[in-house]
Amino acid sequence: MKKVQCDVLVIGGGPAGSITAITAKGHNPEKEILLIREDKEQLVPCAIPYVFGDILGSTEKNVASCAPVENTGVTTMVGVVDEVSIENKKAYTKDVQISFDKLVFATGSIPFVRPTMSEAAKLEGVFTIPKSKVKIDQLKAYVDTKQRITIVGSGFIGVEIGLEFAKSGKEVTIIDGAEHMLNTAFDVELANQAEELAKKVGITLELGNYVDSIEEEDGVVTGVELSGGKVIKSEVVILATGYKPDTDLAKKAGLKLARYGGIWVDEYMRTRNHDIFAVGDCAARRDFITREPSKVMLASTSVAEARAAGSSLYKLKYIKGFNGTIAIFSTVILDRAFASAGITEVQAKIQNLDIVTGTFEGMNRHPATIPDAVKQSVKLIAMNHSGRIIGGQITGGPEVGELINIIGLLIEEKVSVYSLMSLQVATHPLLTAAPTNYPIVKAAEIISKKMD
Amino acid sequence: MKKVQCDVLVIGGGPAGSITAITAKGHNPEKEILLIREDKEQLVPCAIPYVFGDILGSTEKNVASCAPVENTGVTTMVGVVDEVSIENKKAYTKDVQISFDKLVFATGSIPFVRPTMSEAAKLEGVFTIPKSKVKIDQLKAYVDTKQRITIVGSGFIGVEIGLEFAKSGKEVTIIDGAEHMLNTAFDVELANQAEELAKKVGITLELGNYVDSIEEEDGVVTGVELSGGKVIKSEVVILATGYKPDTDLAKKAGLKLARYGGIWVDEYMRTRNHDIFAVGDCAARRDFITREPSKVMLASTSVAEARAAGSSLYKLKYIKGFNGTIAIFSTVILDRAFASAGITEVQAKIQNLDIVTGTFEGMNRHPATIPDAVKQSVKLIAMNHSGRIIGGQITGGPEVGELINIIGLLIEEKVSVYSLMSLQVATHPLLTAAPTNYPIVKAAEIISKKMD
Repeated sequence: MKKVQCDVLVIGGGPAGSITAITAKGHNPEKEILLIREDKEQLVPCAIPYVFGDILGSTEKNVASCAPVENTGVTTMVGVVDEVSIENKKAYTKDVQISFDKLVFATGSIPFVRPTMSEAAKLEGVFTIPKSKVKIDQLKAYVDTKQRITIVGSGFIGVEIGLEFAKSGKEVTIIDGAEHMLNTAFDVELANQAEELAKKVGITLELGNYVDSIEEEDGVVTGVELSGGKVIKSEVVILATGYKPDTDLAKKAGLKLARYGGIWVDEYMRTRNHDIFAVGDCAARRDFITREPSKVMLASTSVAEARAAGSSLYKLKYIKGFNGTIAIFSTVILDRAFASAGITEVQAKIQNLDIVTGTFEGMNRHPATIPDAVKQSVKLIAMNHSGRIIGGQITGGPEVGELINIIGLLIEEKVSVYSLMSLQVATHPLLTAAPTNYPIVKAAEIISKKMD
Repeated sequence: MKKVQCDVLVIGGGPAGSITAITAKGHNPEKEILLIREDKEQLVPCAIPYVFGDILGSTEKNVASCAPVENTGVTTMVGVVDEVSIENKKAYTKDVQISFDKLVFATGSIPFVRPTMSEAAKLEGVFTIPKSKVKIDQLKAYVDTKQRITIVGSGFIGVEIGLEFAKSGKEVTIIDGAEHMLNTAFDVELANQAEELAKKVGITLELGNYVDSIEEEDGVVTGVELSGGKVIKSEVVILATGYKPDTDLAKKAGLKLARYGGIWVDEYMRTRNHDIFAVGDCAARRDFITREPSKVMLASTSVAEARAAGSSLYKLKYIKGFNGTIAIFSTVILDRAFASAGITEVQAKIQNLDIVTGTFEGMNRHPATIPDAVKQSVKLIAMNHSGRIIGGQITGGPEVGELINIIGLLIEEKVSVYSLMSLQVATHPLLTAAPTNYPIVKAAEIISKKMD
């Protein structure tokens, strides 16, 4: 068995692992940082849906380069770690033994398949969406000659993939037990708009409808039977029912797992053993506002954790670690952008938060006669007494991608609607709403008038 | 003389006056709010450049509706206030006497013409850019049959108007004594990019060059002579050398003016007499960071002042008033957006601030193979010891319009580069940079490594 030695071993080459390694090297240039990853070629996870349609068209156009990691002086290796001994500070692949001083788990997540679906998942024509180039290529090749596609799950991945297939002329059905599409991110008024656009592109939505069984013939999928008895003929079934932390290795190594199966970590992403860290989807998360365990998995928040971990390996550098996950998403449905940050109104009710909401609808350019002006709508959610912003949802043009990050920052910096009243913003006819109707300020104003 | 009575009189119907009136009515529904404005039709100030080209094409498409003001129950009147008696709480037009309890000056700004140019300004073919529909229509009609246009001043208005004329095939020269275009908002590296694009559309730039004299024949302008002796033949000369507070009325009423001529106000936009307020371009301003008097005039910051004033007329409602102006701009040059917030590196040197800068260049989509991906560059400026963000400059696609507002919020909320390391953002392939290369975080990281 080959023997390798390093100071910091990072297991996993996705966004969390890469940024941990880069950050660690930046803070500790004298240390030997080794990153080990399973696949030679790593996909950009959030762009996977776009390899199926015209936008990217192939996984080759969606490969994350290793250059940023390697250029900083981090060593990379392709291999599968089968076992870790925390006591001896060693990790093992089939043929290499790696000694480390610090270890970072960045093993990511794998598709979650409901136990009732585990047999069906093995049929020909039934797929999940793992972050693996080989497997995505297989799915793409299989679907190329097929027409009828059914997607189980109306989260971001399911909807984004469904849109790409529908735009390329396939018959797409999306099934979800929830009454509305994208229901973890959007309240009903925005979900309705998203649903209208999905229907416009030809997608059939079966919402509030559970899958009863997957039908097959000779081991090949033929359809999906819904709980009401309706059968949707399908040549391909995609299970897009979420992801779960990939923690088999950590569990075997004896690390404590939290609710929902993530590796337990503190705000600096340390396990109880301060030489062992976990970042990204394999780490346990808490919600920034409610402090409850969170299932949200996002590359963008993973890299925030990675920066906290990478700068805290040998010394805690900054007092602020990672203070909980803000669910912060954006997507595009046809020509409209949709985005959400923090707590939705529905979640606030479930969590028993005393909230006030305010929605302002205007235009994303000013005056409204600017040729590419489209409607823009901002909903803010604030605590009833302090006025502190805890959530927001937006639809509009492409500017929504950064507008939601303003709301994210308001949440993270604990800004109240009162401060927002005199918020100073740049406005420009060709780029933003009017200064008099800047939607975040207007929504805050509406909230301030409704507060106790 | 007709007599009218009101509780709150707002003089001026631009963004500052309108939003003060709307906010005042919202907080005091029982009060009679009267807004008096000079023009029946008010232009959207920042879209004036776009009436000259294809984007709007006429001032009719750039009229700000009075409906938002009137719909809230504010009374509006067209007229010119000639005199105000603060002692008697009365204002006078030619034929109306208005009694008030509270008075808000929102008289705005007028084009600043250098004393050496005041005679030339009277020539046929020489124009300024006042915010008046009648005068903009006159300029537009005059320019329609002309080909050679010279603009004195390379600030936002001069550049934006120059671009519209150049795009419609006219010969445009822009003259500025400064070495670079848009020099108050951008450091040299960004100004260079803006200049390249201006030249690409055919604009001739005469930078670092002063106007010596305006040439004429029979009272009609024929050209501009530069300090070096060069003559630029011109059928039209536009003086775009800034604006000054319109405070004749306030001065006559005995109000104290501050340096640069604005009406002196406190953080709640009150004059020494707490029944008299001033908002917008006619009010004196201080810079948010340096606390020095500021000449920046922006509709977007004016409405922030207006909200502070409108909510403080009868009672101070929020502890936070208006804490100084953040210079925060955005514009579009050909197909690139440019934006700036806070202090530039040049200004920081002049003001003797101990700063560190960090610039990150990436793509505005991810992966870079997304079809509409363009380069995006973010420069941040932070204090050397605290790491507090005090400025930023961006170029990129249309998302820049909101990306700069994130930087504005970082400045206003006094966020440091350390907090930015674990900033949580939404990223999406079709809308933003990659999570691993989110430009604001990357620029902050570069700064943190350079700090003492």
